[in-house]
Amino acid sequence: LDYQHVQVPFEITLWIMLASLAKIGFHLYNKLPSVVPESCLLIFVGLIMGGIIYGLNDRSPPVMDSDIFFLYLLPPIVLDAGYFMPSRPFFENIGTILLYAVVGTIWNVFGIGFSLYGICQVKVFRLQDVSLLHNLLFGSLIAAVDPVAVLAVFEEIHVNEKLHILVFGESLLNDAVTVVRTNLALTFCEMPTIKSVDVFAGVGKFFVVGLGGVLVGLSFGFTAAFTTRFTKDIRVIEPLFVFLYSYLSYLTAEMFHLSGIVAIISCAMGMKRYVEANISLKSHTTVKYFMKMWSSVSDTLIFIFLGVSTIGENHEWNWPYICFTVIFCLIWRALGVLVLTFFVNKFHVNTITSKDQFIIAYGGLRGAICFSLVFLLPDFHRKKLFIAATTVVILFTVFVQGMTIRPLVDLLAVKRKRESAPTVGEQIHIRFLDHLLAGIEDISGHWGQYYWKDKLEYFNSKYLQKILLREYDQPKSSIVLLYEKLERKHAIELAEAGQLGHGPAQPSLLNNDRTVITDQKLEDTPNPDVLDNMQEILARNLYRIRRTGPAYNRHTLPGESEPGEQAKEILILRHKKL
Amino acid sequence: LDYQHVQVPFEITLWIMLASLAKIGFHLYNKLPSVVPESCLLIFVGLIMGGIIYGLNDRSPPVMDSDIFFLYLLPPIVLDAGYFMPSRPFFENIGTILLYAVVGTIWNVFGIGFSLYGICQVKVFRLQDVSLLHNLLFGSLIAAVDPVAVLAVFEEIHVNEKLHILVFGESLLNDAVTVVRTNLALTFCEMPTIKSVDVFAGVGKFFVVGLGGVLVGLSFGFTAAFTTRFTKDIRVIEPLFVFLYSYLSYLTAEMFHLSGIVAIISCAMGMKRYVEANISLKSHTTVKYFMKMWSSVSDTLIFIFLGVSTIGENHEWNWPYICFTVIFCLIWRALGVLVLTFFVNKFHVNTITSKDQFIIAYGGLRGAICFSLVFLLPDFHRKKLFIAATTVVILFTVFVQGMTIRPLVDLLAVKRKRESAPTVGEQIHIRFLDHLLAGIEDISGHWGQYYWKDKLEYFNSKYLQKILLREYDQPKSSIVLLYEKLERKHAIELAEAGQLGHGPAQPSLLNNDRTVITDQKLEDTPNPDVLDNMQEILARNLYRIRRTGPAYNRHTLPGESEPGEQAKEILILRHKKL
Repeated sequence: LDYQHVQVPFEITLWIMLASLAKIGFHLYNKLPSVVPESCLLIFVGLIMGGIIYGLNDRSPPVMDSDIFFLYLLPPIVLDAGYFMPSRPFFENIGTILLYAVVGTIWNVFGIGFSLYGICQVKVFRLQDVSLLHNLLFGSLIAAVDPVAVLAVFEEIHVNEKLHILVFGESLLNDAVTVVRTNLALTFCEMPTIKSVDVFAGVGKFFVVGLGGVLVGLSFGFTAAFTTRFTKDIRVIEPLFVFLYSYLSYLTAEMFHLSGIVAIISCAMGMKRYVEANISLKSHTTVKYFMKMWSSVSDTLIFIFLGVSTIGENHEWNWPYICFTVIFCLIWRALGVLVLTFFVNKFHVNTITSKDQFIIAYGGLRGAICFSLVFLLPDFHRKKLFIAATTVVILFTVFVQGMTIRPLVDLLAVKRKRESAPTVGEQIHIRFLDHLLAGIEDISGHWGQYYWKDKLEYFNSKYLQKILLREYDQPKSSIVLLYEKLERKHAIELAEAGQLGHGPAQPSLLNNDRTVITDQKLEDTPNPDVLDNMQEILARNLYRIRRTGPAYNRHTLPGESEPGEQAKEILILRHKKL
Repeated sequence: LDYQHVQVPFEITLWIMLASLAKIGFHLYNKLPSVVPESCLLIFVGLIMGGIIYGLNDRSPPVMDSDIFFLYLLPPIVLDAGYFMPSRPFFENIGTILLYAVVGTIWNVFGIGFSLYGICQVKVFRLQDVSLLHNLLFGSLIAAVDPVAVLAVFEEIHVNEKLHILVFGESLLNDAVTVVRTNLALTFCEMPTIKSVDVFAGVGKFFVVGLGGVLVGLSFGFTAAFTTRFTKDIRVIEPLFVFLYSYLSYLTAEMFHLSGIVAIISCAMGMKRYVEANISLKSHTTVKYFMKMWSSVSDTLIFIFLGVSTIGENHEWNWPYICFTVIFCLIWRALGVLVLTFFVNKFHVNTITSKDQFIIAYGGLRGAICFSLVFLLPDFHRKKLFIAATTVVILFTVFVQGMTIRPLVDLLAVKRKRESAPTVGEQIHIRFLDHLLAGIEDISGHWGQYYWKDKLEYFNSKYLQKILLREYDQPKSSIVLLYEKLERKHAIELAEAGQLGHGPAQPSLLNNDRTVITDQKLEDTPNPDVLDNMQEILARNLYRIRRTGPAYNRHTLPGESEPGEQAKEILILRHKKL
């Protein structure tokens, strides 16, 4: 037996196997996941595993390594989140998200830090040796909402899109703040005196870190899109580039102390549209499937490791400090959301209701990022207290808040996610309004989001597409792509049911629809029933357009197959009546 | 800049990126890959990279780590090979393959070892300090044909299936021999005297190592199939199980000093049929795509690393020894193939022609496995000589033999692979003959391959399928599966061409075809034209069967949609005439 030789890959494979089997196990009992969030169950499995390891070895089980977490487990989840991010609600609410992510997080840091320092002054608690700086340091890591935990819970409760993107966007973008804060705090620890100019320099650094991340991400994203222009002969390695370039963007950003999360999200959002157009259908399926698979496994592993790491002897259970941490986390987050939303609502017509505010405050879950950060703290004699407090806050938020948020959403009747995808009519209206508003903004000289969106679209179709797309001379509008996708899906269903003998013909809308319509929304949330419905609407509409179209269009010759097509359609209509 | 922090994943990602870009680069020039095999080009890229590293750092570039090779680079390639292995020719020729792999390899070991020892006795060459045991040790690692190199070259020259499987099967199965040989040789090095009983114990170990590998592989394969029974609710992690279980089988076999290659191949071949039936279509696409992608990247990395490792100062250039190594490798392989084939031909009707024998002998390429093994040799003062000789043999076989084998195949007019997939008629005849021969063997009391195949098939449908398949009560015969696959493909094509309005109906063959037909061959080599052709044949045949079928079948009710179907078909036929 030569275990040493294969130890590393063997143990990694076994952990992944455990995670996958745990996932299967939960889904075998259909009722369980609808009551308890999966994240809680996984932490529970981790606790049991940790207990077993502790019992067998009689020493603390290994804690999750911060390097493993940040370098290997976090990127797949963030990549998945960025790639499937609904871009429209994200960009519509970008101002609010940034406000929560930057100002809100700083508010929480100082709020929690100073309050805990106040608690430390109470003699009974025997905490007088914890300095203000250490409290602020602790506040800085416990303040950040965790994207992994938020995703795990919010994906199951189906609140409306805006609410979801507000909480989730905040949790993603506060990474820039977290990176700077952690670096600053560590530097401040070593400095003899802190001048106010240092504090301002720190605030300035936020922008460098955030914008730097965006820049790194976009440049890797565009390179990825450019590379996939040349993969026509070796389709098989196409998916690889999506993963390699995203990962490189993350690592590069981390290397330069920029925000890796922001970088990988920019990369994914930047490349998505072009890569999808360049690579083959099967490659695309593989990319999507593998991304989901990878992030789901990472997610599972993180929660299991969280559970395992909780067991052990590296905690100092000073309960007053721990309890006040939980309380201050809740209070300061609630206050922060209230105050910030007050200002946000002043400037918006579509306000955030008080129910939404409650869910935003209540959905501020903490998770593995805090946990990894607390181990990266410089060693000092009460580090174990911080570890214990972080563990309790995470378990409290994931278990108590995570399990009660669904009943609360039901109770408050928070506006849910639309069950149905928007109809084609709605889509066309939204696009029409976008164009109209862009025109109005241009005339009135107000450079709002529609103006910039329009300019970006123009820049995209004029320059970017020509460089990044393989067949740039024939950009298909997304409505045609959707139609083709639906047709394909329908065809497969027909073939599987063995009824390949009906249906409409050629999507000749291609040349009739001359505006560049490129909303990503259409591609997301494919609810089968609604899609079928849409397909029928589309099919009928396309049919009519084709009937009336060609006469008005100077770019298409009346096709040679037109008479045959018409005859076929008549036949189809007739056999439908049979 | 914090490079240390991200160094490991960053460099791995960069190497993979380099490999992928190199692959794209070659395919941009269409003429290049048709003259020079890709493996040669990749080694060349590696040589340049190595030269650059050597030039910049002024010290030898890092050599390929044997652990990295055996634990991370080799498994994906072997998994891919095993998963897509055409099982019929493999099992038909298993005897010949085993003879080449076991007896042939031992022949080469002793032939090369003793001849080189003879060369060492010539005083002029100054090699008298190389002992017989060291020569045999060297012979034992240089004798093995390399599956990675063989695959890379033989996939491009398209010789007939039997020839391909003979060379490729040998290269895979000699791994069991290699494992035992290497362990034995290392043990013998440490033993004071070697008794003949030790040699016999060594020969007995071959069977333990080989059969143990098969056992480990099959048990993991069946566990994988069993696991995928329960993944219905979380399709997204289905592909993961295929990879996890195969990798675990490889690692477990390696851990117990069994043959990892044999284990992973048995695992892949054992699970394939059941896993494919259990998982969803998209998961299956992802599995196939990712397997191909992974093996292709591993393959590329191996050849690039081979090139990089060649540059440097860990060689001792004793040219007589090196040249004689190359010559003996060629001579002993040629002799071995001649002698063994003489015996094989005595017992077979379908003999191996002399042209085939030449290609088998000439196709015995050496590759990265030898290279990794030579670094694992125990340290002794002339190890660098062995490294140099191994490097030269690999470069000679890959460059000279790899580049000339295609012209030679053309020149000798070696029988090529059939361009067309077998027609449905042929398939049915082959299956009919299989059943007939199984019956004849059973009656005559001769337990040959058909008898065992039939028994295995019976065992499979009686027990294994019930345990391993999700819907075991309705096993679809492969001809129906093929038909569905073709229909789906056709439907997609129709949808993409926008002509969804023709085609045949329900595959009602399901209940007419009651024999369990399960040839894997049908699934392989899907040549689009031929598939289209087959589909038409199938469609026409099915149509006729459906017309005549139901009257004879007591298990199906005359379908309620029958009259409508008929009307539809008449319509389809009529509109085809338009």
